[in-house]
Amino acid sequence: MRSLRCLQQDAERKRTMPNATMTEQFLRRAIAAGRGLEPADLVIRNARLFSVMDGSFVDTDIAIVGERIVGTHGRYEGAQTLDAGGRVVVPGFIDAHLHVESSLVSPLEFDRCVLPHGVTTAICDPHEIANVLGIEGIRYFLDASERTLMDLRVNLSSCVPATSFETSGARLEIADLEPLRDHPKVIGLAEFMNFPGVLSGDPAVLAKLAAFQGGHIDGHAPLLSGLDLNGYLAAGIRTDHEATTAAEAREKLAKGMTILIREGSVSKDLEALAEILTPDMASFIGLCTDDRNPLDIAEEGHVDSMIRRLIGRGARPQDAYRAASWSAAMAFGLRDRGLVAPGWRADLVLLDDLESCRVHSVVAGGRPVDEAGFAARAPLDPVGLESVVIGRISAEDFRIEASRANERPVIGVVAGRIITERLSATLPVRDGAVIADPAQDTVKVAVVERHGKTGGIGRGFVSGFGLQRGAIASSVGHDSHNICVVGADDASMATAVRRIGELQGGFVVAEGDEVRAELALPIAGLMSLSSFEEVRVTLEDLRAAARDLGCTLAEPFLQVAFLPLPVIPHLKITDMGLFDVDRFALVE
Amino acid sequence: MRSLRCLQQDAERKRTMPNATMTEQFLRRAIAAGRGLEPADLVIRNARLFSVMDGSFVDTDIAIVGERIVGTHGRYEGAQTLDAGGRVVVPGFIDAHLHVESSLVSPLEFDRCVLPHGVTTAICDPHEIANVLGIEGIRYFLDASERTLMDLRVNLSSCVPATSFETSGARLEIADLEPLRDHPKVIGLAEFMNFPGVLSGDPAVLAKLAAFQGGHIDGHAPLLSGLDLNGYLAAGIRTDHEATTAAEAREKLAKGMTILIREGSVSKDLEALAEILTPDMASFIGLCTDDRNPLDIAEEGHVDSMIRRLIGRGARPQDAYRAASWSAAMAFGLRDRGLVAPGWRADLVLLDDLESCRVHSVVAGGRPVDEAGFAARAPLDPVGLESVVIGRISAEDFRIEASRANERPVIGVVAGRIITERLSATLPVRDGAVIADPAQDTVKVAVVERHGKTGGIGRGFVSGFGLQRGAIASSVGHDSHNICVVGADDASMATAVRRIGELQGGFVVAEGDEVRAELALPIAGLMSLSSFEEVRVTLEDLRAAARDLGCTLAEPFLQVAFLPLPVIPHLKITDMGLFDVDRFALVE
Repeated sequence: MRSLRCLQQDAERKRTMPNATMTEQFLRRAIAAGRGLEPADLVIRNARLFSVMDGSFVDTDIAIVGERIVGTHGRYEGAQTLDAGGRVVVPGFIDAHLHVESSLVSPLEFDRCVLPHGVTTAICDPHEIANVLGIEGIRYFLDASERTLMDLRVNLSSCVPATSFETSGARLEIADLEPLRDHPKVIGLAEFMNFPGVLSGDPAVLAKLAAFQGGHIDGHAPLLSGLDLNGYLAAGIRTDHEATTAAEAREKLAKGMTILIREGSVSKDLEALAEILTPDMASFIGLCTDDRNPLDIAEEGHVDSMIRRLIGRGARPQDAYRAASWSAAMAFGLRDRGLVAPGWRADLVLLDDLESCRVHSVVAGGRPVDEAGFAARAPLDPVGLESVVIGRISAEDFRIEASRANERPVIGVVAGRIITERLSATLPVRDGAVIADPAQDTVKVAVVERHGKTGGIGRGFVSGFGLQRGAIASSVGHDSHNICVVGADDASMATAVRRIGELQGGFVVAEGDEVRAELALPIAGLMSLSSFEEVRVTLEDLRAAARDLGCTLAEPFLQVAFLPLPVIPHLKITDMGLFDVDRFALVE
Repeated sequence: MRSLRCLQQDAERKRTMPNATMTEQFLRRAIAAGRGLEPADLVIRNARLFSVMDGSFVDTDIAIVGERIVGTHGRYEGAQTLDAGGRVVVPGFIDAHLHVESSLVSPLEFDRCVLPHGVTTAICDPHEIANVLGIEGIRYFLDASERTLMDLRVNLSSCVPATSFETSGARLEIADLEPLRDHPKVIGLAEFMNFPGVLSGDPAVLAKLAAFQGGHIDGHAPLLSGLDLNGYLAAGIRTDHEATTAAEAREKLAKGMTILIREGSVSKDLEALAEILTPDMASFIGLCTDDRNPLDIAEEGHVDSMIRRLIGRGARPQDAYRAASWSAAMAFGLRDRGLVAPGWRADLVLLDDLESCRVHSVVAGGRPVDEAGFAARAPLDPVGLESVVIGRISAEDFRIEASRANERPVIGVVAGRIITERLSATLPVRDGAVIADPAQDTVKVAVVERHGKTGGIGRGFVSGFGLQRGAIASSVGHDSHNICVVGADDASMATAVRRIGELQGGFVVAEGDEVRAELALPIAGLMSLSSFEEVRVTLEDLRAAARDLGCTLAEPFLQVAFLPLPVIPHLKITDMGLFDVDRFALVE
């Protein structure tokens, strides 16, 4: 570990020395240390270095100066040494696409949670916070990226808002994004999910695409194929994490896309895609988690768990580890990383075991990762602490007037999937209002606009939660992140939504006037101020409270959070009302 | 073929429309054409598309808009069509490292000579012209790169002059190179051949390396290994074309270098390195020609001949073609090329046959390559037409005074290699001067400074040419490009050198007062103003004339040209005198 004093000395040098001279001095030291003429900053002794090129091993020391590896395949001396004890060393893992917000913790806490799993580079799309706070949210992540021990890279959210059928907190046009294009932590444009806009040549979409030609444009094209896929790719889009079958992935690979195999908390594609990771294709495949919550990270792991499962399903270790490092680095133009070799970025992982990818310890940017390192990071002020702006909410706000039409459309949730079914039901009427009918597993759902813009509330019914009493609410509601609430009665729904307002965002389980469990998410209504360990415990409380109300879903809050997402079929709900994704229109 | 009128219209549009709007309009068209809703600019029908990913084939049309492929794996209509007749289509080849000057023709003529061999991207180092003209020479190549049909990319010459033991026409420091760093055709810093300077941390070297950190720095590290290789790599150097054995290449690969297999006219490494091109390593290997003369290009081909021979030696076709395209593109950060797929640069080669790599035709940047296209290029004024500045040369200038020491050091040339031996001989003395002794295959050699700086002449003896009469002279003399002359008598040497002065550079064979054959190379004394076909014929005349004088070497001019190169062991000669490379000092 480099001490805090070292870091301060570095900072001092930075202030007093021109950049060019600093680089020259660094190079002089790196070269001399690589030759073994001067001690390195850090030497990892007794490493069993694994090659993601050909799967070979070599017993060696690894010498590091600053953020750079300067020596392998030899013996070295260093100011600091770390005995690998014969452990296998592989390049640090790259999560090629994820939303940090889905971890429910701040970027610095995400760093502390995920880096110990070997993820030394995370390429994030701050799409959620951008929908709430706009550029301020993206800047928050860029500020965070200068503090994290992992290398947090940012793709600029390309589609905010996702549609015009919801009220978001912000709108990002090319004029907003362009000033950030050349930020050193920015890679390019994030997942271009508005593929209808690409295909139709929407002028605002073309302006965004035009500004990032020659740079990186991340793809997001579920089920797109044939000539429409060609049209999408002709726009210069190069990666995709939305392939869900091997056949879909193979077409995309054949058309030059790098496929990012995704395994999130909800969307899980690893089993279906494992077969594409062949020796020939390993250079064209990366790994990503997209959305993974802290419980899954605790229970399964992160990119490390994906490597383990891919090898378990027959991938050669060099192919799985190459996809997790070098291949992803090339796909995103991160040419300084992905191999453990002299001149490359000192991101590496010590493993107890290659096949199970059991991470023993991690070196990120030349520094061994430990709690002291996390504690020494410069603090980062949270943003968006007053982002939940709602009026006075009462039970009356959720009332659905009875009409002559007796049959009502019902959103059918499917356990573990974000796609929904379009169902219908005949529901009881009381005092001139249609009410929930837990007996037929159909309760009320509402989305409350919370950006202080319209105060709109969309109302409808949902089935599949199993909820018998009370309500479940969340200020995480993809992609505009209005408050989504599901409840067996209007009073419980009002209690839950009001509590979210008081918490300035969060997850709440309520029954009648009482709050049964809660997690505050005051950073833009999306992320906690607490540690990931605390969030994990609180999430378990929330699940238990939901279960007590009869909820049968394993991930009730994720399922609530995806009910408002109007780009995923078939029936959804926004603050403007029920939304028929297939017709791409609000339900009258 | 896009007509000249089309090109003029394009140019017109460029003048009248802001760039962003042009890009948007291009994207709209590319997307629509990719979807098959509008005709593409060019459609290649009946192609058998070969995948450098996995070696599979697919029968398809290939649709192109502007410089970009917009559709594969489907049927398309286009304003222009080109029937591939079932021929195999592969990505355009990348020559990952070469000196255009070695072709002896201008960059535009090189384009016309080499592009039909499928080389759609050539990454050149204008090291030779830079040694004569400095930045003006590099700018000449950058100007050429805006005119060639191939994509000519430039690495900035890093080591001008190569040593302080020779007089070059120019000296390039970081302050000269830095203003060109961000030129759109510049990749980075060219082959860093001053590896002693890197290893010792020479301040001027560190300044150059520092300025290109984060960009590309090309390597040149013959025989460097172990910790010294680590030190060299710690400087951020990433590629090498100087490995001459498989063992050397394997160490460099294991240490993260991309190995460029080289097969030039003199340095030929393909046979020795073919075995490293395995399926696992194909992503980390590129191909290059370095120095190839027009006779070899005519007789053997260019990168196409390397692919043919690699496959002939057992490489899988997908590995050979991947190395020649995608792998090289990744190594140099050219992320827009290397695959035939929608969104990628429309550089592709139609082959009569995959295994023999017989090129049928070429599409470069979306345009089918033909003579009309070459003829329509904007002309480029030659530079350095008066670069040969020498005084009056007479036979006396080559006189070597006899001294008490009877035995003289002699440079021993080795046929087909640029390395020389250090020999010695006892030579006849006439009129107080030591003279050549063709009977023991030892003749005189001299290097005449020709940049108008010192007028210095280095004199010595050389064996191995077989020369019995007359002289051979060249204004190509690596790396400072002074005039190097080898001769059996001083009068012939003077005639040859004087004629080079009159021609403003060239190759000359002379005997007594008469010039027997000559090739004028008036562009900086390095390149011809003629077509490559004419140069080829003239070179054959020159070879015949050299043979007539008794010369037994297959490549007499290349061997003359490398005699002054003071960085290649063992005994060399510069305008300052005989140079002992092993001691890195002039011979007293």
